[in-house]
Amino acid sequence: MTKQQLIENIRRRESFLCVGLDSDRKKLPHHLLGDDDPIYSFNKAIIDATAPYCVAYKPNVAFYESEGVEGWITLEKTVNYLKQNYPDHLIIADAKRGDIGNTSAMYARCFFEKLDVGALTIAPYMGEDSVTPFLTYPNKWVIVLALTSNKGSHDFQLLEDKASGERLFEHVLRRSQVWGNESNTMFVVGATQGRMFEDVRKVAPRHFLLVPGVGAQGGSLEEVCRYGMTDECGLLVNSSRGIIFADTSEQFAQVAGEKARELQEEMKTYLNRC
Amino acid sequence: MTKQQLIENIRRRESFLCVGLDSDRKKLPHHLLGDDDPIYSFNKAIIDATAPYCVAYKPNVAFYESEGVEGWITLEKTVNYLKQNYPDHLIIADAKRGDIGNTSAMYARCFFEKLDVGALTIAPYMGEDSVTPFLTYPNKWVIVLALTSNKGSHDFQLLEDKASGERLFEHVLRRSQVWGNESNTMFVVGATQGRMFEDVRKVAPRHFLLVPGVGAQGGSLEEVCRYGMTDECGLLVNSSRGIIFADTSEQFAQVAGEKARELQEEMKTYLNRC
Repeated sequence: MTKQQLIENIRRRESFLCVGLDSDRKKLPHHLLGDDDPIYSFNKAIIDATAPYCVAYKPNVAFYESEGVEGWITLEKTVNYLKQNYPDHLIIADAKRGDIGNTSAMYARCFFEKLDVGALTIAPYMGEDSVTPFLTYPNKWVIVLALTSNKGSHDFQLLEDKASGERLFEHVLRRSQVWGNESNTMFVVGATQGRMFEDVRKVAPRHFLLVPGVGAQGGSLEEVCRYGMTDECGLLVNSSRGIIFADTSEQFAQVAGEKARELQEEMKTYLNRC
Repeated sequence: MTKQQLIENIRRRESFLCVGLDSDRKKLPHHLLGDDDPIYSFNKAIIDATAPYCVAYKPNVAFYESEGVEGWITLEKTVNYLKQNYPDHLIIADAKRGDIGNTSAMYARCFFEKLDVGALTIAPYMGEDSVTPFLTYPNKWVIVLALTSNKGSHDFQLLEDKASGERLFEHVLRRSQVWGNESNTMFVVGATQGRMFEDVRKVAPRHFLLVPGVGAQGGSLEEVCRYGMTDECGLLVNSSRGIIFADTSEQFAQVAGEKARELQEEMKTYLNRC
């Protein structure tokens, strides 16, 4: 998906919502547990109910890997279901991969050829040759961790470099722009970071940001938009648990759809201002 | 595996060699390609030929993931083959995972429960809560990236923190020791880093280090031992391509065994000094 297509999808659907498919077997509605593949049944219902209100889906790969081989089969089926039924929705594999060059090339083959998703999250600790193999695929997105939503983000990401005066996350934002551009690279910035979005925008004024942490993690959508939105929107805001596990009765999908619609309606008001 | 068991294995086998199972389908000996699962056939032959000369195996998870679901099946079979036939060898899943707490807990479930390997490599960018879920498993090892073997290691790992004067990799070494200890945590330090092992040992004098980069990446075993060895050895030195793809004829396993034996003999001389 190109940046222009993404922006058009956001405008048309009046939404920059990404629904996180953190589909934990232990949290599934009980009535699904007798199905052949309960997680796949769950994902399909969630996707059908939320698709009108979002522009992207983000399967969190850990939740599938934790099921072993069966989980990878579920992940493949979910991705194929999305591609067949909702080809305009960006599929982001949230996998946070990254290794030396020849190994990152293997991860790229996994996610951009085998699974063939549209975007992948990347951990930048190992530097340039761990990121660039993912950038060789046209119309695919690399989403580099910059300033994450969790408490541990303060351990290393805020270290201030003596030579440049930049903090580590700013250094990651700046260096990554030498390797890729705003048409193939996004950055992860947690919704819990509040006004730090202003600092992110100083270094990356036009890049799309993938923003987790709204909902269960406590981030504010209003703050994210106030400090992080651009005139092209520039945001994909993810909600996982707050949508997909809002209800665990037989009405779970309907409630998930309502939660997604509520977020979409709030997003619409912010989009009208940008 | 406990630290004591690892040290005993090293003493008994006079080796601190880890064989990296970076089993790329494109590099397999041609005569295996007709097998049902050529990568598994390859791994079994490599393992049988090299087991007397090493103490650990390190499947590089990217090479299996790049094959999709089939690759995960091969990885599971390989791990099971090792556990059944070589229970004294440490199995290190080289996966470089790391995410927010609840997601890292899922990766831990995947590698320490489902696959049930003895050790896992972890990327530390996201800080404490991305690492600690892996530390709750008794007798399992968390191997945190510190100073890696690749060129990109210079992009971020050497940034010098203004407040403490420490470089990022030193900060990772020090902070990680608050979360774990020398009985459940190792660090990745690339063999290409030469005298930097002295700096690593100032911060982590007694931890085991997993050292990739000998062989194809150009690191020197002699230098690694001179600057990084402790009186308990304290090193697991990995070689992948230099052993497993040393030959691609029908004698590939025999040649791999010889390459492993050559490294083991060199290691024996260094062990006699420590």
